Amino acid sequence: MAERPSGPLAMRHFRSEVVPVPPPPADAVLLRNIFVSVAPGARAVMQGAAYRRQLLPGEVIPSSVIAEVVAAPPGGPEPGSIVGGAGGWQEYSVVPTSEIWPLERVGELSHHLGLLGRNGLTAYFGIREVAQLRAGETVVVSGAAGGVGHLAGQLARVAGAQVVGITSSAEKNEILRRQLGYTATVNRRSSSFADDLRAACPAGVDVYFDNVGGPVREVVLPLLARHGRIVCSGVTAHYDADRPPVGMTDIAMQLIVKSLRMQGFLVADYLPRWGTAQRELHALQEAGELTVLEDIRHGLDSAPGALIEMLAGGNIGQLAVRLAPDPPGW
Amino acid sequence: MAERPSGPLAMRHFRSEVVPVPPPPADAVLLRNIFVSVAPGARAVMQGAAYRRQLLPGEVIPSSVIAEVVAAPPGGPEPGSIVGGAGGWQEYSVVPTSEIWPLERVGELSHHLGLLGRNGLTAYFGIREVAQLRAGETVVVSGAAGGVGHLAGQLARVAGAQVVGITSSAEKNEILRRQLGYTATVNRRSSSFADDLRAACPAGVDVYFDNVGGPVREVVLPLLARHGRIVCSGVTAHYDADRPPVGMTDIAMQLIVKSLRMQGFLVADYLPRWGTAQRELHALQEAGELTVLEDIRHGLDSAPGALIEMLAGGNIGQLAVRLAPDPPGW
Repeated sequence: MAERPSGPLAMRHFRSEVVPVPPPPADAVLLRNIFVSVAPGARAVMQGAAYRRQLLPGEVIPSSVIAEVVAAPPGGPEPGSIVGGAGGWQEYSVVPTSEIWPLERVGELSHHLGLLGRNGLTAYFGIREVAQLRAGETVVVSGAAGGVGHLAGQLARVAGAQVVGITSSAEKNEILRRQLGYTATVNRRSSSFADDLRAACPAGVDVYFDNVGGPVREVVLPLLARHGRIVCSGVTAHYDADRPPVGMTDIAMQLIVKSLRMQGFLVADYLPRWGTAQRELHALQEAGELTVLEDIRHGLDSAPGALIEMLAGGNIGQLAVRLAPDPPGW
Repeated sequence: MAERPSGPLAMRHFRSEVVPVPPPPADAVLLRNIFVSVAPGARAVMQGAAYRRQLLPGEVIPSSVIAEVVAAPPGGPEPGSIVGGAGGWQEYSVVPTSEIWPLERVGELSHHLGLLGRNGLTAYFGIREVAQLRAGETVVVSGAAGGVGHLAGQLARVAGAQVVGITSSAEKNEILRRQLGYTATVNRRSSSFADDLRAACPAGVDVYFDNVGGPVREVVLPLLARHGRIVCSGVTAHYDADRPPVGMTDIAMQLIVKSLRMQGFLVADYLPRWGTAQRELHALQEAGELTVLEDIRHGLDSAPGALIEMLAGGNIGQLAVRLAPDPPGW
């Protein structure tokens, strides 16, 4: 990060540097990154403390990585082994040993950033645990074509729900309906957005899987049915700004009069169950129940532009940057 | 209500009228009110749709009542029987038969508006069900000396929690600590409010029982511990204004990064369990575990001033207006 953004993210906020690869300290490993993720949360920490502490100018943009271990302390992972980790937008990353994890050898390698990574697991536990979803209910997903959203909507469909997706374009919406089995879709940029959403949810909204927050949430809230549930997965509408927009209505009052639950969660809460979840996600994909949408860019220099495009609503599915070919055997 | 308030509630927004008592229609009863409640929710519906539709100028201020049945349709309650109901600030109320309920013959009559009425039941189900409270946890109650708050804090204490109360005066706080067994109290009008609250909750806040919303919630939110719970019971800070104040921070982001649950509820959600709850509340009071604070005013003309005082933070405990003596046998 070259400087802290003031207003919408732009290329001037990034800088590319070539520096020597440092030897890792005793409690860290040196990774050669194969994939780095491009996720909206990176924008949030550029602005202030969010999922992690605020990023400082000159620091590396943090991201999930899929990587090959180059060097590790005694008792650490084998050099050459493939791991996931909390790294950054770098060709090589030095990562504390406590922040890497072995990959279950299922599915395609890139899926460990998406379907089998944080995004897939967020969709999985959000729908399976937080939403308390029942068959026949109506689920609305915002950011429905995004990395988390396109999987959350499909998992809701698999659970027997009516799934209504909100995105920012007709092109994305057609993909959701035709390829992913969404019941209906609504374009949040349409002038008739609120009316369109109400028409798509004639029995009200039982579960709102909220990836975006902001003005879209204000449109969905009045449509929630009694005992509805709001799964707070992300607030991307708030990330690309100096400060979050103010609420337009009082959230607590809406929660009270309809007995709503609003619950945030971190995928890390479910760590002991990640393996089970990954096996089920992979099986659903193999059975044709889950379609994975991926958008893989190439080379580290493509990462800033991909993040800017994502924040402007331009991406579909899991966005990642490939830095190296898959290792043998994947 | 003489006119819709614009800004803080004042006596000019009320008007007292003497009108003939109408004969009740076939599906309604005529009640002689013994007690009418004074509750912040009345202010909310004077402004707009909240717990019920917006009140119109010329309509009667709605309230819970404890009343004697004067006339009822065939098959309805016996004339002379004592009931609770959704009435208003009137000496006599005509109430649909579906909106009255028999009173369990336990405790003092006035307690059926407080300890055994909506306030007590709201405290009971909020602590017992919504909060998912565990012994040893820290509970913060706002509006802690109010009709709901002073019971919620005590029920949390009975469940083994550390209970920290927030009120608007040192006088109320002393009552909470000395008479009700609160662990600590904080004055929200103190210039050191945020620091005082942090010092009173050294291990963070596990449950926030929120009766007030508004700026107090913004001070409590950063203190919540991981997996904390916010029980949305009321938003009195928002009631005495033309429109609710805007949020100072994004609530969803705070819910996400700490995996918080925010849940609204209505006491009506637990209707089948009211009887059980009332018997337990009464038993706790008989055993000296629950102290009931009551503030009983006399005569209908005292109601508007009592509501204005309550909204300004002037009341302690359950506020009600007595219109008639207790009937024989109570």
